[in-house]
Amino acid sequence: MSVALVGAGPGDPGLITVKGLERVRVCDVIVYDRLVAPELVDEAPADALRIERDRLEQDEVNELLVALGRRGDDVVRLKGGDPFLFGRGGEEALALADAEVPFEVIPGVSSLASVPGSVGIPVTHRGLSSAVTAFAAHDVERLDAAALVRVPGTLVAYMGGARADRLAQRLIEHGMPASTPAAVIVRGTMPDEEVVVSPLGAVAPAARTPALVVIGDVVGVRSALAVRRSAA
Amino acid sequence: MSVALVGAGPGDPGLITVKGLERVRVCDVIVYDRLVAPELVDEAPADALRIERDRLEQDEVNELLVALGRRGDDVVRLKGGDPFLFGRGGEEALALADAEVPFEVIPGVSSLASVPGSVGIPVTHRGLSSAVTAFAAHDVERLDAAALVRVPGTLVAYMGGARADRLAQRLIEHGMPASTPAAVIVRGTMPDEEVVVSPLGAVAPAARTPALVVIGDVVGVRSALAVRRSAA
Repeated sequence: MSVALVGAGPGDPGLITVKGLERVRVCDVIVYDRLVAPELVDEAPADALRIERDRLEQDEVNELLVALGRRGDDVVRLKGGDPFLFGRGGEEALALADAEVPFEVIPGVSSLASVPGSVGIPVTHRGLSSAVTAFAAHDVERLDAAALVRVPGTLVAYMGGARADRLAQRLIEHGMPASTPAAVIVRGTMPDEEVVVSPLGAVAPAARTPALVVIGDVVGVRSALAVRRSAA
Repeated sequence: MSVALVGAGPGDPGLITVKGLERVRVCDVIVYDRLVAPELVDEAPADALRIERDRLEQDEVNELLVALGRRGDDVVRLKGGDPFLFGRGGEEALALADAEVPFEVIPGVSSLASVPGSVGIPVTHRGLSSAVTAFAAHDVERLDAAALVRVPGTLVAYMGGARADRLAQRLIEHGMPASTPAAVIVRGTMPDEEVVVSPLGAVAPAARTPALVVIGDVVGVRSALAVRRSAA
């Protein structure tokens, strides 16, 4: 009787961890994000209660997990990516700790490196980048663009795909060269994955979600890999 | 006949991905980092060739993977964390692409969020941090401390444990408050995991490796969770 906050990974169902999948396979209740692979929800026992979380507010999710945990069920809270990297797992953990409900956190593969990696972009690469900054970009106007432009290494914007053009514009206004390589990646690691590579000054908004925006010289490694691959 | 660059995760063998473990279980050759869990190397077939990579230079590893791939073997290159986040997987991928050896990259759980998470620290948390910067800190003197101090959100230093005190000193010299919460985490997610929490001004070097240094207000969430847990 406990609650497991489990990271499902970036989309490809094979990218859940072994330990995470073990918890899914024996749970009484699974509370899952809409974007989690349906194959993973199907791994729960046939008689497990399935609850899609997306119509609930975060406070309601916290309360639900506490109520289910108190009932003595083995609960899996299956979240996209990693619970503690833009997953709001900290809020759920605090609610469970407050209510004295036992819980554990099972990390997952974040989109951070896996989604760029899926299209041939290493977020760090010798001689190009020895740092990476991941940031939430749902509120583009409030970002500290001046600081983001100064930080060394690769930038990865979460939740900024729909306004990727405006994000690029703000970074350029604060001094980032418009020629900086950028990539907008939609549904990374999934069969219908798409990527558009362009200079920062020509970035277009993503048409679908989830989308990740990657900015920096490492984007160029993709073409190096692709050119060589196509020559094979 | 191909080479799979596989992320093994942060240390706990249960944190490899399902897809990564599948590749390990059917490989002809496994080339592994010393820090990878021995339980995972044991998952390779009994007659698989096992090669520990740590006595080889990176160029030699690249050449070895190319040679093995050309021989027609199914090769797993098992790396700590994620291949593309301080894993030098990009270099190996380029060498394989250059040599026209088919390869795939299977991401892993990086230490970035999983190691702090293992000790109760979410690297992002509502109201405290909506960004995280991971950086290689093996050469503390050459870090752009001025830029790191300005970037919003959590800092996570890789390979900086042995000189964590000097890292802290440099950040303080560039304006980061000495009272900023910090944590030095050794062997995170493993049974002998250790964490020391202190203000930045009192950070001590880690005695063992691997060590991760986490800096920012999110470190305080750990005590909130721990206090509530101990009251249970």
